[in-house]
Amino acid sequence: MNYNDIFARAIDRLHEEGRYRVFIDILRNRGSFPNARCFAGHNGPKPITVWCSNDYLAMGQHPKVVEAMEEALHDVGAGSGGTRNIGGNTHYHIDLEHELADLHGKDGALLFTSGYISNEATLGTLGKLLPNCIIYSDELNHASMIAGIRNSGCEKRVWRHNDLAHLEELLAADDPDAAKLIAFESVYSMDGDVGPIHAICDLAEKYNALTYCDEVHAVGMYGPRGGGISDRDEAAHRITIIEGTLGKAFGVMGGYIAADKNIIDVIRSYAPGFIFTTSLSPVLVAGVLASVRHLKASSVERDAQQAAAAYLKQSFRDAGLPVMDSTTHIVPLMVGDPVRAKKISDILLAEYGVYVQPINFPTVPRGTERLRFTPGPAHDEAMMRELTVALTEIWGRLDLELKKAA
Amino acid sequence: MNYNDIFARAIDRLHEEGRYRVFIDILRNRGSFPNARCFAGHNGPKPITVWCSNDYLAMGQHPKVVEAMEEALHDVGAGSGGTRNIGGNTHYHIDLEHELADLHGKDGALLFTSGYISNEATLGTLGKLLPNCIIYSDELNHASMIAGIRNSGCEKRVWRHNDLAHLEELLAADDPDAAKLIAFESVYSMDGDVGPIHAICDLAEKYNALTYCDEVHAVGMYGPRGGGISDRDEAAHRITIIEGTLGKAFGVMGGYIAADKNIIDVIRSYAPGFIFTTSLSPVLVAGVLASVRHLKASSVERDAQQAAAAYLKQSFRDAGLPVMDSTTHIVPLMVGDPVRAKKISDILLAEYGVYVQPINFPTVPRGTERLRFTPGPAHDEAMMRELTVALTEIWGRLDLELKKAA
Ligand SMILES: Cc1ncc(COP(=O)(O)O)c(C=O)c1O
Ligand SMILES: Cc1ncc(COP(=O)(O)O)c(C=O)c1O
Repeated sequence: MNYNDIFARAIDRLHEEGRYRVFIDILRNRGSFPNARCFAGHNGPKPITVWCSNDYLAMGQHPKVVEAMEEALHDVGAGSGGTRNIGGNTHYHIDLEHELADLHGKDGALLFTSGYISNEATLGTLGKLLPNCIIYSDELNHASMIAGIRNSGCEKRVWRHNDLAHLEELLAADDPDAAKLIAFESVYSMDGDVGPIHAICDLAEKYNALTYCDEVHAVGMYGPRGGGISDRDEAAHRITIIEGTLGKAFGVMGGYIAADKNIIDVIRSYAPGFIFTTSLSPVLVAGVLASVRHLKASSVERDAQQAAAAYLKQSFRDAGLPVMDSTTHIVPLMVGDPVRAKKISDILLAEYGVYVQPINFPTVPRGTERLRFTPGPAHDEAMMRELTVALTEIWGRLDLELKKAA
Repeated sequence: MNYNDIFARAIDRLHEEGRYRVFIDILRNRGSFPNARCFAGHNGPKPITVWCSNDYLAMGQHPKVVEAMEEALHDVGAGSGGTRNIGGNTHYHIDLEHELADLHGKDGALLFTSGYISNEATLGTLGKLLPNCIIYSDELNHASMIAGIRNSGCEKRVWRHNDLAHLEELLAADDPDAAKLIAFESVYSMDGDVGPIHAICDLAEKYNALTYCDEVHAVGMYGPRGGGISDRDEAAHRITIIEGTLGKAFGVMGGYIAADKNIIDVIRSYAPGFIFTTSLSPVLVAGVLASVRHLKASSVERDAQQAAAAYLKQSFRDAGLPVMDSTTHIVPLMVGDPVRAKKISDILLAEYGVYVQPINFPTVPRGTERLRFTPGPAHDEAMMRELTVALTEIWGRLDLELKKAA
């Protein structure tokens, strides 16, 4: 058994497929986002513009958020010092859980150290508590949901992406008395399309299934108070469990679920991924509190972000660039090959000071590699026009196809 | 299928067993740790002393840590805005990984959002990459290691706690050509005893096994530079993968592994729990950088903490309190029953302003419920004497046995 060989071969496979990942070394400049400094491979920091941040609304740099974090840092210190049960439960955590429960119109909420672990722990634990539960999972569900479903040990049925007829077919084929859970997302972040929440809840009611909706890319972004697509579509009360992140539109870090009292209590009491880990730093929690409260009351950031996304999509379309069919704030350009996607990204960074990460397997299926742009309220129209010109030049240079508008 | 009934019964079971957990609502006072404020069930915040924090050295309140976090907050903002691969890799992350690799004398290190996920993701992924790997797990390993081992899908052999003969028996019984991984801890945090690292590495060499050592409760705490028990015992070079947390002695939040280049690269490239999640906030990373650098150079905190732990153990022993056989900085008192452990903890909080959380199942096996004290450099001798008097009084009040010294 030669361990080194096995590890070396695993790395070689990535190089061969052109999907070995090199992390770009950057620092954002607070107050002038999307500007940042890039370190790697340069003589000293070089200014760049970030086009692929999931801090969609730049809340990570909002004065209210920064102030709240500074205050908490000075009031209580850096970390919580313990798990939620043993010394790590602070007043900030309790306040934020109330705020998030209210955001989604639910009885309660529960914080996790990340959106990833909130999905993994909740789905894994629910599946273990419900005897012989069957979990129905949209085929494009995020890796963290897939991990949770696998770890639950439940039977799993995968339905074709957003295909309600297929979902119903699967539900109808199973024992009507079996416990059932339908797991899906609201905004699918790599394609930018949206799950049909009401129609899924109709099926859940018809077949007596629980529903679990990942709103990670929608919380803070949609609905009058930023409660997500379920807020916009007035569907939150129909979903059993809403899951979200504190690291994207809210600009900080962490994850949570919102649901009725008993479910929150059950996950709080039984999920290893919640129980056996140091709780979120109170500094982060204080920042998120400020962020959530601000976005409940203000739609300025959401509106500006939607306007920027619409402008960029139109600009790409006008130039004949292969922008995908997104109905949300996400602007993906299909490339379809990992080597070319990386090449375009490399040229953008080296020659144009534009940072957009190529998205490859396993984040998206092989053959659908892409560039994914997330313009924010601070990307202005001139920047977007320049970006379009740059991409058009590169598309020509690499002999890629431009679809001229009909 | 009545879902509500199932959830309600799951909660009822906890109440019946006396292990339903109520989180105490506190805020620490920066600069005067271990003092804190307690909210729940009182008219306004009430001052308490925390005796169960895992911020063992009070680094979460160290001026260098607080300053570094404040600087990062003002320089780059609250969150990273992305996964390590997509926009969330900052210069702070790279610096900290170098610092941690150096701390353990390894080629590289890899950051995770928590110690929990570092264990789960690394063990889960290693086990999948190594064909037909068998994992040997100490029976007292932490829940996060158990989760990773289960998720790896590997065959698992559980060896009796710290029992080398049993470990060897299991190793010898398996196919000599099979891939093997021995997973264990250095400091077992609920008992306070230590794993025999050198002897385990001897067996690993003899049977060609990899070794994985969780140093979560030892990093920052042991060794001339705070590299853990493997630093103290000069064994780091013999361990394949060392895992640690940034949320206990280092006082902030997050987790990591340190290992050779290929292993780091493999986990970085294949572990879903590393890939698919927003990276640690640069504010936290900056704080940890300051903390690790300080504890590499300073042993003052470690020495003061060890002195306090030794004093408290002796004080408990002199009073006949059932202090467990800990050889480390952890001071556990055995109670052996969840209801009594909670009762003692409740009296301490209500009447003495002492906060120590009762430890119950599933954190420790049923029937071994205990109180776990973690005195720090700032708990002085007078406080420890008072605590001993309080406990002696409560032991008497509840008719519990005191073992008078022979
Ligand atoms: C759909 C989805 N769910 C969950 C997560 C995980 O959230 P977090 O980054 O907070 O771990 C992500 C991305 O990171 C995601 O895209
Ligand atoms: C032995 C052990 N490993 C890992 C962890 C998890 O580390 P973290 O709190 O950083 O998630 C803990 C406790 O929390 C632990 O006690």
